[in-house]
Amino acid sequence: MTLIVEKFGGTSVGSVERINAVADHLMRKHADGEKLVVVVSAMSGETNRLIGLASDITDSPSPREMDVLLSTGEQVTIALLSMALQKRGNDARSYTGGQVSIKTDNVHSRARILNIDSVKIQDDLDKGRIVVVAGFQGVDESGNITTLGRGGSDTTAVAVAAALRADECRIYTDVDGIYTTDPRVVSGARRLDSITAEEMLELASLGAKVLQTRSVEFAGKYKVPLRVLSSFEEGPGTLITYEEEGSSMEAPLISGIAFQRDEAKLTIRGIPDHPGVAHQVLGPISETHVNVDVIIQNASEKGLTDLTFTVPRGDYDQCMDVLKGLVTKLGAQDVKGDDKIAKVSVVGVGMRSHSGVANTMFKTLSDNDINIQMISTSEIKVSVIIQEDQLELAVNALHDAFELDVK
Amino acid sequence: MTLIVEKFGGTSVGSVERINAVADHLMRKHADGEKLVVVVSAMSGETNRLIGLASDITDSPSPREMDVLLSTGEQVTIALLSMALQKRGNDARSYTGGQVSIKTDNVHSRARILNIDSVKIQDDLDKGRIVVVAGFQGVDESGNITTLGRGGSDTTAVAVAAALRADECRIYTDVDGIYTTDPRVVSGARRLDSITAEEMLELASLGAKVLQTRSVEFAGKYKVPLRVLSSFEEGPGTLITYEEEGSSMEAPLISGIAFQRDEAKLTIRGIPDHPGVAHQVLGPISETHVNVDVIIQNASEKGLTDLTFTVPRGDYDQCMDVLKGLVTKLGAQDVKGDDKIAKVSVVGVGMRSHSGVANTMFKTLSDNDINIQMISTSEIKVSVIIQEDQLELAVNALHDAFELDVK
Repeated sequence: MTLIVEKFGGTSVGSVERINAVADHLMRKHADGEKLVVVVSAMSGETNRLIGLASDITDSPSPREMDVLLSTGEQVTIALLSMALQKRGNDARSYTGGQVSIKTDNVHSRARILNIDSVKIQDDLDKGRIVVVAGFQGVDESGNITTLGRGGSDTTAVAVAAALRADECRIYTDVDGIYTTDPRVVSGARRLDSITAEEMLELASLGAKVLQTRSVEFAGKYKVPLRVLSSFEEGPGTLITYEEEGSSMEAPLISGIAFQRDEAKLTIRGIPDHPGVAHQVLGPISETHVNVDVIIQNASEKGLTDLTFTVPRGDYDQCMDVLKGLVTKLGAQDVKGDDKIAKVSVVGVGMRSHSGVANTMFKTLSDNDINIQMISTSEIKVSVIIQEDQLELAVNALHDAFELDVK
Repeated sequence: MTLIVEKFGGTSVGSVERINAVADHLMRKHADGEKLVVVVSAMSGETNRLIGLASDITDSPSPREMDVLLSTGEQVTIALLSMALQKRGNDARSYTGGQVSIKTDNVHSRARILNIDSVKIQDDLDKGRIVVVAGFQGVDESGNITTLGRGGSDTTAVAVAAALRADECRIYTDVDGIYTTDPRVVSGARRLDSITAEEMLELASLGAKVLQTRSVEFAGKYKVPLRVLSSFEEGPGTLITYEEEGSSMEAPLISGIAFQRDEAKLTIRGIPDHPGVAHQVLGPISETHVNVDVIIQNASEKGLTDLTFTVPRGDYDQCMDVLKGLVTKLGAQDVKGDDKIAKVSVVGVGMRSHSGVANTMFKTLSDNDINIQMISTSEIKVSVIIQEDQLELAVNALHDAFELDVK
C-alpha cells in the first residue's frame, strides 16, 4: 500500500470551503488505496491576525511567546480538517507538533527539526485513519513550543515523510510545478517535469520561492521523493529526483534561473589582515541568527583586508549595527552598505561536465550593460549580485541566452 | 513570600486593552511581593468564533477535535498576557495545559483534572517570573488535548493553587462577590464577606453561576482559600472559608438562596418494581454524561414504581430518547416530561443546628400559591422544584422570609 504525505499551505486551507475541498481530495486518494498523512499550515490570514494582536501589545514580543501564539494557527486547521474528514466517514486524527514529538532545537521562530516520533502516526495509518499533522511547529527538549520559520510546513511534511519512509511527499502550492524561472518575469518560462534535488536546493535557496530550502535539504538527505503540484488544478507537477552516479552527462546544461530581490550587502573595510578576520566579523553576525549568503574577502597590499557579505534586506539594519560595533574593536577603517541589490543565479547539474556557463552568463550581462558587483560559484550554479533595478532585464536576457524556453 | 494564584475569565481578557489592564494589575501585586501564577480563559468571543468555524464544517464535530480546536483560545491569551508582562519588565512565561502536565481523564469536553506537575511553575516563581497558565485545558494519559467544560478555568486555577499549596486563589469575575441571592432578581440581595465552602458548593451547583462546582469541590478538598472578586472594581470580594468543628453554632441560619432556571424533569412511570430499577434507568442516562440532579422514586401499591429526575434543559431531548428506548425493555407504562421547571434552594450550614428551615420554606411558598413539584434535601440545603414562571416570586418571598437583607 502506498504511503503518501501531502502538504497544503495557508491558501489551500484558507476557508471552510477550501478545507472541504481538501477533504474531498483526500477521501478520493484514500479510496484509491493510499495511506495518507496530511500536513497543513494556518488558514491564510490567521497568522497575520495573530501577529496583529501581538503588535498591539508590544513592539518586541519575545520569540518564545510568539511561537506559543502563532502555533495556534495550525492547531485550528488540523482540528477543522479532521472534522471535515470525519464527516466524510474517515476516522481522521489530528496532532500538534508536540503531540507527535516533532523535536526541534530551541531557536524560537527558526527552529530546526531534530527528530520525529512516528509510532502514533503509524498506528493510526494501520487503522485506516487519515492523519492530520500541524505544520510549522515543534517542541524543544524542555517542551517549549517552537516554530520553524517561513515555509516551515514544507519542512514538517518532508520530515514526516522521511520518518515514515513514505513513498512520496507531495507539496501542494499555488503554482503547478517548478519553472525554468519565474513566469511573472519571463513570459517564456517553462514547467520542468523533473529536477534534481541539488538543482532544486539551489533554486529554492536562491529565491524560487516554491519550496523552503530546508525542506529540500531534508528531502535530499533522506532521499524523499518530493513532488510540487498545484492545489487548484490537476497536473503532474514537478518531481524532484536524486541524481545517480554518471547520469549528469545527459542532464541539460542548466535547468533554471533563480533570483532573489530584497537583498542587502555590507562591507567592513580596512581591517588589519590576519587569520581569523572572517570569523571575527561573521561570528557576531551569525549569533544574531541572520543568514549570511555571498561572502567575499579582498586582501589589499597594505596588510589590510575588506570583507563583504550579503544578507536578507530585513536584517540589514541589525547587521549594520553589529558591524559598526566591530570597527573599533578590530581597528577597521569603516563600514559601507547597500540595501538595493539583487541576486541572479543560473543553476544546473550539467555545468559539472560543460565549461563555459559562467562565461556565457558574464557576456550576456555585459551585452546588456549590467554591472556585476559580486560573484559566487558552486559546482552547479553561478550567482551574481547586481543592482536591484536591473533584475528583470538580467533574468530575461539569461533565459534567452540559455534557450530555456525550448525543451 | 505570599504565593497567589489569580484567575481571569474571558471578559477580563477580552481585548488588548483588558489584557494590558490585567498586566498592570499583576505588576502591582508582584511589586507588593506576591509570587504570582495567573490562569486565563480565551478572549471573550474567541470560543464562539471557533465553534462557528467547526459548525460550518460539520453538525457533529468529534469531541476530540473540538478540544484541539477550542484549546487554541486560551493559548492565544497566555501568549499575549505574557508579552504584556514582559513589556512591563517581568520575565513572564506561558504554559499550555499540556506543558505543565495538567493530566485529566479522557472525557473530551468535560474532562476532570487528575494531577498537575508543578515543578516548572515553582522553578519559574523562584526566578521571580509571573507564570501564565492556560485555563480550561489539559491532556489525557495518551497526550490527547482535553478541555474541562464550562467554567473549567476556575477549576484549573484551584487545581494549580492546590498543587502549589498557594496562600490564596483569587477568581476575578464580573461580580464583586457572592450574594445572598441574585441581585437582579431580589433588590435587597447582600454581598457576603465570607461563606463556607460547603455552602458555596451548594450555591454554585444550584445555579449561583459565579464559580464552577468542580472548582469549589477542588478548593474544599485541598482547603484552598478561595476568594471571588471583581475584575472591574476594587473590593474585598467574598472569601470562601472552611468550617471548623463546632463553629456552625454561630453560623447564620441560612446564607443564601440559589436558583436554577432551564431545568427539565422526566418521569418514567409504571416500571415493575424490583431492586436495581433506579440503576437500570439512570445507568443509560449517566452513560450520555448528562448530569442528573434531583431524583425521586415512588413505589406504588401494585408492584409498580415511578422514577422522576431533573436534568439541564439542554439535555432534555436526549434523555427523553433514552427513556423511550427503556420503556419496552423494562416493561414500563410510559414516559412523561416537563421542560418548563426551575429549582429554588435555601442553603446554610446553620441548618444543621436549627430545625424548621424546611417548614418556613414550605409555608412561605404555600402563602404565595406556589406549588412544590419535587423536594430534595441535604444537610445544609433544601431544594424544591416549581413551575419556572413562579421562580422570581419564590426567590423574593424566601429572601424576605429568611431576612437575608439584614446582616
